[in-house]
Amino acid sequence: MVGHPFDAAVALQPLRDGVWQGQTHPAYAGMVGPFGGITAAQALQAVMLHPQRQGEPVALTVNFCAAVADGSFEVHARAARTNRSTQHWLIEVQQQGQVVMTGTAVTALRRETWSVDEEPMPSCPGPHECAAPSVLPPLPFTRAYAFRPIQGHWPEVWDGSGETSLTQTWVRDQPPRPWDFASLACVADVFFPRLFIRRATYVPVGTVSMTVYFHAGSPQLERTGDAFLLGQARAQAFRNGFFDQTSQLWSDQGVLLVTTHQIVYYKQ
Amino acid sequence: MVGHPFDAAVALQPLRDGVWQGQTHPAYAGMVGPFGGITAAQALQAVMLHPQRQGEPVALTVNFCAAVADGSFEVHARAARTNRSTQHWLIEVQQQGQVVMTGTAVTALRRETWSVDEEPMPSCPGPHECAAPSVLPPLPFTRAYAFRPIQGHWPEVWDGSGETSLTQTWVRDQPPRPWDFASLACVADVFFPRLFIRRATYVPVGTVSMTVYFHAGSPQLERTGDAFLLGQARAQAFRNGFFDQTSQLWSDQGVLLVTTHQIVYYKQ
Repeated sequence: MVGHPFDAAVALQPLRDGVWQGQTHPAYAGMVGPFGGITAAQALQAVMLHPQRQGEPVALTVNFCAAVADGSFEVHARAARTNRSTQHWLIEVQQQGQVVMTGTAVTALRRETWSVDEEPMPSCPGPHECAAPSVLPPLPFTRAYAFRPIQGHWPEVWDGSGETSLTQTWVRDQPPRPWDFASLACVADVFFPRLFIRRATYVPVGTVSMTVYFHAGSPQLERTGDAFLLGQARAQAFRNGFFDQTSQLWSDQGVLLVTTHQIVYYKQ
Repeated sequence: MVGHPFDAAVALQPLRDGVWQGQTHPAYAGMVGPFGGITAAQALQAVMLHPQRQGEPVALTVNFCAAVADGSFEVHARAARTNRSTQHWLIEVQQQGQVVMTGTAVTALRRETWSVDEEPMPSCPGPHECAAPSVLPPLPFTRAYAFRPIQGHWPEVWDGSGETSLTQTWVRDQPPRPWDFASLACVADVFFPRLFIRRATYVPVGTVSMTVYFHAGSPQLERTGDAFLLGQARAQAFRNGFFDQTSQLWSDQGVLLVTTHQIVYYKQ
């Protein structure tokens, strides 16, 4: 049996203390260079592999500094501070000695506490009641996911219309794969640029910075398995070359697993 | 005339290339050590002062690694990557050679483009129709702001009740001061821990990571002046020791200036 493309994509080879080598993977190619989500996952994976890591990811911020070229890259991960229950990481992804991504992560030992989801899963049909999309964008990585859109998928007509940037869609890895922290970091970036949804207009765009908060620990991820997640994304403001995106991912049982935010450059 | 306490608090003295020294300021003290917002502002200020800086802040992420002790600290800021219109910064705040905050920032040259606010300012009474709060929390930095709360201010009764973490409040510097990027980074952290609002229960809390997106450039800030901003904050999930907070700050003219997110440790 051949391994899952995601496992191949996040496979890192140790080079020296705190430095790993990875390779871009054609299954996660974007428009130009790799899909940003996979680079975020590779960055987080270096933390996951680090022998000094304590606990599980709680927060990840990645900054997309430059286009990643197809081929090999280095991930540098360093614990800047280790406390009793939290640990702070600095991450850099480099190609030819140039920084292409910077990042920070927080890992923590989590304990059971009083807990409540305040943002409820939107009421919507289940993943098996929703049809696969009739249009898939010309981006190879979108074939690495199964989408079951409810609203706000890739525009079918690019006519400049639109009143909202809201997307709601079920999504899972294709083929299915049990969710883990790296694949959650990847899927956090799966929502198409809000500007395309809001305006049905194509302009050059690129994510500049993305932050992912993990509300799920390993026991919750085990309960979630490889099921479809409900993803929701919308913009709050488009202003003078940058728009934001605020997103949530719930398990099919209605548990909020991830909240994530990004800011995206756009040209016009 | 004596300068504004905020200017004194973010004053940094150059030590060597990319390194500044600052001092904690009693006007911005929190429960233990300084208010997190002022440390974020001091971190951003090093970028603002850096001779290689291009453009204005678009994104800032700060990670609170350890309690900051009262006294002096060093801020280290370095441009990891400079592109034609964006620049990526790595920031560390240190005390006694130990990292107490890590951060990243993106600055950019902004151009006028198609723009729209998708998240409208909530309908609510104006700042001069709202009363000053009857209760102020026992945190010195709250005296550095004028609050005109609409809902979800510091609980008057700590009885374990509550159904929502939503806060809406007008807020400005006290005494008034024209808003700039550093003071926006500071006020982004002004909302009390969502857990206090949601549960009316006191438990130990501490922000772990905060991200600020600036949707306003200098011309917009000039139009905003020193007016009250409308702030809104709520949590999406409280789970096993960490909750998130998602917030917006609008000008009194209804322009969305800042969207910000944080993840906060809590004990029980």
